[in-house]
Amino acid sequence: MPAVQISELRAHAGDTVTVRGWVATTRSSGKIAFVVLRDGTGQVQGVLSKKELPEAAWETFGSLTQETGLALTGVVREERRSPGGFELAVSGLEVFGPSPDYPITPKEHGTTFLFEHRHLWLRNRRPVAIARVRHEVEQAIRDFFYQEGFTLVDTPILTGAIGEDAGNLFATDYFDLGRAYLAQTGQLYVEAAAAALGKVYCFGPTFRAEKSKTRRHLTEFWMVEPEVAFNDSDANMRLQESFVSYIVGRALERRGEELKELERDTAALERVQAPFHRISYTDAVVRLNQLGSDMTWGADLGADDETLLAKDRDRPIFVYNYPKEVKAFYMKANPDDPRTVLNNDCLAPEGYGEIIGGSQREDDYDRLLARLLEQGLDPETYRWYLDLRRYGTFVHSGFGLGLERTVAWICGIPHIREAIAFPRQIHRLYP
Amino acid sequence: MPAVQISELRAHAGDTVTVRGWVATTRSSGKIAFVVLRDGTGQVQGVLSKKELPEAAWETFGSLTQETGLALTGVVREERRSPGGFELAVSGLEVFGPSPDYPITPKEHGTTFLFEHRHLWLRNRRPVAIARVRHEVEQAIRDFFYQEGFTLVDTPILTGAIGEDAGNLFATDYFDLGRAYLAQTGQLYVEAAAAALGKVYCFGPTFRAEKSKTRRHLTEFWMVEPEVAFNDSDANMRLQESFVSYIVGRALERRGEELKELERDTAALERVQAPFHRISYTDAVVRLNQLGSDMTWGADLGADDETLLAKDRDRPIFVYNYPKEVKAFYMKANPDDPRTVLNNDCLAPEGYGEIIGGSQREDDYDRLLARLLEQGLDPETYRWYLDLRRYGTFVHSGFGLGLERTVAWICGIPHIREAIAFPRQIHRLYP
Repeated sequence: MPAVQISELRAHAGDTVTVRGWVATTRSSGKIAFVVLRDGTGQVQGVLSKKELPEAAWETFGSLTQETGLALTGVVREERRSPGGFELAVSGLEVFGPSPDYPITPKEHGTTFLFEHRHLWLRNRRPVAIARVRHEVEQAIRDFFYQEGFTLVDTPILTGAIGEDAGNLFATDYFDLGRAYLAQTGQLYVEAAAAALGKVYCFGPTFRAEKSKTRRHLTEFWMVEPEVAFNDSDANMRLQESFVSYIVGRALERRGEELKELERDTAALERVQAPFHRISYTDAVVRLNQLGSDMTWGADLGADDETLLAKDRDRPIFVYNYPKEVKAFYMKANPDDPRTVLNNDCLAPEGYGEIIGGSQREDDYDRLLARLLEQGLDPETYRWYLDLRRYGTFVHSGFGLGLERTVAWICGIPHIREAIAFPRQIHRLYP
Repeated sequence: MPAVQISELRAHAGDTVTVRGWVATTRSSGKIAFVVLRDGTGQVQGVLSKKELPEAAWETFGSLTQETGLALTGVVREERRSPGGFELAVSGLEVFGPSPDYPITPKEHGTTFLFEHRHLWLRNRRPVAIARVRHEVEQAIRDFFYQEGFTLVDTPILTGAIGEDAGNLFATDYFDLGRAYLAQTGQLYVEAAAAALGKVYCFGPTFRAEKSKTRRHLTEFWMVEPEVAFNDSDANMRLQESFVSYIVGRALERRGEELKELERDTAALERVQAPFHRISYTDAVVRLNQLGSDMTWGADLGADDETLLAKDRDRPIFVYNYPKEVKAFYMKANPDDPRTVLNNDCLAPEGYGEIIGGSQREDDYDRLLARLLEQGLDPETYRWYLDLRRYGTFVHSGFGLGLERTVAWICGIPHIREAIAFPRQIHRLYP
């Protein structure tokens, strides 16, 4: 009997096949019984008739519990009312993995309990749907940059104290070299690679030892960071809007079923098309004040301000040219207003807030060194980074898109810890 | 004047364009001068005529040094002898990034010096070619699993003390939860995900705090780890051979130019086709003894043994069913010979040695617990992993392929530190 995946049943209508998977639910009406089996590719309903089954098999059905590992053999029948459009007329069943007292039951569980059992909770419909959307988004990211002629450059996790912020670093002993720090960003490294390869990106896990407990923070999260030689800040924003539109489009095109499972309003996602809205930081302050915020020029935008700015927008919005004091040392000074830098954030609509931070990079050696010193950073640690301004310095820009925030937005889920299989938060390191 | 990339020049033959990049070399024969410019997409030769250029421009040429950032304007001319097939008849040049005393000169440099200047050395032809092959291999890996219906599951770096080996772990303080350890593998996590999604993989950086200084070790390297529900050890090897054949084929098909730059013997790569050779560990010991090794049954294969076994093979070779004592606790006991486990290594030909380790996983709760205890591991740390054998246990298999070893083999380079942009070794954390 050929073993087939549930997603392949369509090709086997009328055949007798074996499907292996795990028991999602069972129900019985005396002489007819039903078992819904899931195998990671889909779900199928098996129909059992007491009259037609051997007695031992009927008794086995009676002992099935949630998540029992089970092989069902039977004829594949078209059944339009069934999820997936097919069901199995079961002639045999074999338990290969019993599951007594499965801890996650159909009743409501608290969030802490569910994350403590994340290794099992992943099997539920909602985590499965989110995992599939996340994968689609990640593959779309890879495909976009591959098609656009970027070269992937994997940047190191173990680094000297390099990053946006010398605080908030995880540290580890590193042989005879003292301490190593887990990278908060690969940006500085892709800047070096951009001079070698023109258009590059990195995409991997990044780390922040921040004591933030908001629904928008993880201590370990994935970030994709393209960097492009000869792009200025305007070209950088154009790249961002075509990139974000592409990945949202891919999720809509290929993960419609999962978005439906998540009850996502896809009409809102359909509107994510270039060009995005643009507003300067300075104009944004005026607008926020009109909207009732007491925000003043010079302060960073808080999460509430971001929500206020983006909530009545149908597409993402770029806020550009922030005060230099609230932004990182490597952003290029704005020649038209030296109080500000040539940067942008990209705010997702529907209150999801910042998903991208980007900027043109400071390409002047002396200005960059001055900014490092102003921020109390050690120029010796940044010696190689300064070299990029010493030997053939060049206009270049890039950005970082937070994967979990983007997936949370696309899936319409309120907390980013659901956007990753095994989230890491300040109080969570297990499983 | 439109600014174009060097890779796009073909589409602009006869046009006047501007190309921005960095000076690779210059030479002059009195009245005619040549500058080779690279921009990350390719190289182009600019031809300057003293007679036709403004005097200031001619003088600028005289001041050009290696890696000067330079914009060249001129007419694109077909020139078959030129790399890329086109050259630029230069009518204007503008320096945007001077490069005085560039440290990497055409003369020979020592390896230590070059890795100390890795942020600049990346611009050389050989590192650029390797970076492009690496990217192709990584995209091929993503595409293979996407097309085969796997779901990507990113596994955590920050973990409890989970891995193959409780020694050799990098550790960091983790808020109030004590110590976290950098993952050596994502395998245990993808096993959990396989019960949710059927076919899954992870692909990210992994860490080993080993004091190994061989040409085959890094402290931080990328590993891809697929895991498949209902695959036994045989199916696992079949997946490996189709996977490895695919990625080698992609490199040959799309990165021929780079492999030529690296002077790789591509005929050897063309022979990498399924089926691969297969030999049991027990037969391999006999074979090694015939070949003059004093290897005895029960010991692990050393690098020399691997080379000996694979050197006269035209394709990779699987060595399967090793003694359980030399392998990890999670490998399934071989029912036909309980001294051994259902695992395999995959050895690349041409002396490159192990690129894959794989196995069927122990799916029996009691046997797995006994193995944990035998190896002195703490069952409490592995509680969630044991749960996978408590609730719907299932046959499953997977493997890990080391990216840098694979890229080194495909590129034909002797030391894996060249297969990654910013290698991390026990004595190297900079840049």
